[in-house]
Amino acid sequence: MAWNLLVGQSGGPTAVINASLAGVYESAKALGASHVYGMQYGIEGLLEGRLVDLDAQLGDKMAIELLKRTPSSFLGSCRRKLPDPAVNEQPYKQLFALFRQYEIGAVLYTGGNDSMDTIAKLAAYGAAQNSEIRFLGVPKTIDNDLVGTDHTPGYGSAAKYIATILKEVICDASVYDIRSVTVAEIMGRHTGWLAAAASLSAGSDCEGPDIVLLPESVFDTDMFLQRVAELAARRHNVIIAASEGVKDRDGTFLCDLVSTAGQLDAFGHKAVLSGTSRYLADLIRVRLGCKTRAIEFSTLQRCASHLASRTDITEADQVGGAAAEAAFRGETGKMCGIRRISDLPYRTETELVDVAAVANREKAVPLEWITPDGMHLNAAFERYARPLIQAELTPIYINGTPQHIHLKTE
Amino acid sequence: MAWNLLVGQSGGPTAVINASLAGVYESAKALGASHVYGMQYGIEGLLEGRLVDLDAQLGDKMAIELLKRTPSSFLGSCRRKLPDPAVNEQPYKQLFALFRQYEIGAVLYTGGNDSMDTIAKLAAYGAAQNSEIRFLGVPKTIDNDLVGTDHTPGYGSAAKYIATILKEVICDASVYDIRSVTVAEIMGRHTGWLAAAASLSAGSDCEGPDIVLLPESVFDTDMFLQRVAELAARRHNVIIAASEGVKDRDGTFLCDLVSTAGQLDAFGHKAVLSGTSRYLADLIRVRLGCKTRAIEFSTLQRCASHLASRTDITEADQVGGAAAEAAFRGETGKMCGIRRISDLPYRTETELVDVAAVANREKAVPLEWITPDGMHLNAAFERYARPLIQAELTPIYINGTPQHIHLKTE
Repeated sequence: MAWNLLVGQSGGPTAVINASLAGVYESAKALGASHVYGMQYGIEGLLEGRLVDLDAQLGDKMAIELLKRTPSSFLGSCRRKLPDPAVNEQPYKQLFALFRQYEIGAVLYTGGNDSMDTIAKLAAYGAAQNSEIRFLGVPKTIDNDLVGTDHTPGYGSAAKYIATILKEVICDASVYDIRSVTVAEIMGRHTGWLAAAASLSAGSDCEGPDIVLLPESVFDTDMFLQRVAELAARRHNVIIAASEGVKDRDGTFLCDLVSTAGQLDAFGHKAVLSGTSRYLADLIRVRLGCKTRAIEFSTLQRCASHLASRTDITEADQVGGAAAEAAFRGETGKMCGIRRISDLPYRTETELVDVAAVANREKAVPLEWITPDGMHLNAAFERYARPLIQAELTPIYINGTPQHIHLKTE
Repeated sequence: MAWNLLVGQSGGPTAVINASLAGVYESAKALGASHVYGMQYGIEGLLEGRLVDLDAQLGDKMAIELLKRTPSSFLGSCRRKLPDPAVNEQPYKQLFALFRQYEIGAVLYTGGNDSMDTIAKLAAYGAAQNSEIRFLGVPKTIDNDLVGTDHTPGYGSAAKYIATILKEVICDASVYDIRSVTVAEIMGRHTGWLAAAASLSAGSDCEGPDIVLLPESVFDTDMFLQRVAELAARRHNVIIAASEGVKDRDGTFLCDLVSTAGQLDAFGHKAVLSGTSRYLADLIRVRLGCKTRAIEFSTLQRCASHLASRTDITEADQVGGAAAEAAFRGETGKMCGIRRISDLPYRTETELVDVAAVANREKAVPLEWITPDGMHLNAAFERYARPLIQAELTPIYINGTPQHIHLKTE
């Protein structure tokens, strides 16, 4: 069996998904892979036959260093899910023909729970065909919602960005001698891991957010306004970090309460507003008469490689490398997760878990890490998350901005 | 005359206004000032008698290092302008009484053109009273719109942030194999210096924005859409950087075209949308049928000290120190600006200019630095701006986030 390895990236970008690619590439080459191929735009591009030989791209050490410092997906990504092969076998036939053509011995796919579903299906189909190809998943998502791993590569860097930026926003919010409420909107439609990271801005030099709202806790307007009013009575600047996925008792997203108000854009179309922070800022302004401002941390949360966590980069590299090594050992149908050995000193190891047990599932913030009023995190969350944002990998600045590397295509 | 020095910060925050405070403090102490006092919340706080003795705050070198890495205004700020003393002399009497009480020999004020108006008025009033107190201005604004200085401290760091973040957003925008147009909205209501800095994201690893829209050029909808359509026809991702101050031929801000569309918030009030990017994204989506996304860089542009330009920090420190030194030499009614000696190698020196000639004026991006179609910058802008974003000052990370210093008040 020829040892060519095929690697793809899938789902939303992170600051460190390319560090996992670096780990896969370097381990595969060290273990003797003849070629390492990359899928362009994940399984979707692969179905169009879009493969690139990574030896031509990542052959020197400087390329690897730049890759670890480049956000988003070097290979391009997709959100395509494979069908049930019992219903539609065609894409599987096409993919396995490609695997034969390129003499692929192992396929590694980096992504979240949808991507693990792809690996689970390919592994099951391969097994049914008596294929010797190994299929392994490499976890990745800023959302940190994967089961089967203590945390996901990508989360630590997003968390470090959120905590750092919020500290700076808090400095900014206190500049004038006036009362105001700042609402920062943080990504995470279904789970509150990212919003929870706002609490990491607290330290000896910063009190951090006064309120953190997560999708895991039901939003109660009256309790919320009462808490804001209490805070506003005793301090100049009230800081609220809110997940975009905060929901009311009926399960309605607050941002949908905004857009169902029938707003139109300047062209008469229904306005598309990602509005949790705006909703909350308006609520506070109208009901409490406070000066408010809404800030969206937006897409920068997933692409700020200049502020990546070195712990996260290292672990992303490790799970990529360990997945490649597992493929060489003959493992298949597994995801390479992270197991925590201890919080302090922080130590982890990689471990293989059944990818089918990871696919399509979602891990929420444990309710016991949320304060009883549902509006903040407790010390258990900090113990879990603080190690993940430690240390930095200095960007390579050229001409004043961090240098990146991009796929060379003809 | 006792050599106590009083220093204040005014106007909007920047990433390096505190580096100027460090420069003022260290030079004043080195030159023999008995005390250096800080105004809390600028002239507004001073009128309430809010002074702090900075020796208790900045007495050790670690405090100075942290100060240079802390965004926003360490002393707090205000937007108060002093009245014409011929109309209302009362605040002047109050301030000069305070100066006598604290044996102040010099007053230094860091800010933009409104703050220079304050210094000009205090200097004129003092001269009319035969006061020996010296009044000096220290320039500061991310907007870079001050006359009398090659550029303003604060601009280089905002420009570095904008260029870096835009590079990362461009990586993020290219992740899927679909056509899309990204519109990034950048601060600057009256001048386009900050939006122009988006062009600095271009380099060997990044093409930079395809279009840069500034308030200095009239926005023409048809020409703009034609250009976007041309770009979208030949590339997957079109990137547009737009100043929040872009105006149409009638001088109407594009963001006002959004809010005059009669939108209401979820509570039935007129919606407040800072909407230049949203307006443009909607325009492109509706008229060209492209997938679009709008991103606001928002307040982070002025407070991202973790990504400050070392050149900017150094110059902010220098103008602060040189202003203190000028006060000791007996200068008054001056602002300490930056004069450029050469672009390459980049060299500057500080120089004193008449503060009255700076007050209340505004410097726009020269039209000859804008391409003839009004939608990009040329090499002359890069020659001017590129040196300002060079080099970094590593944050002092503690527990995963950059450490700051805050005013200790009882």
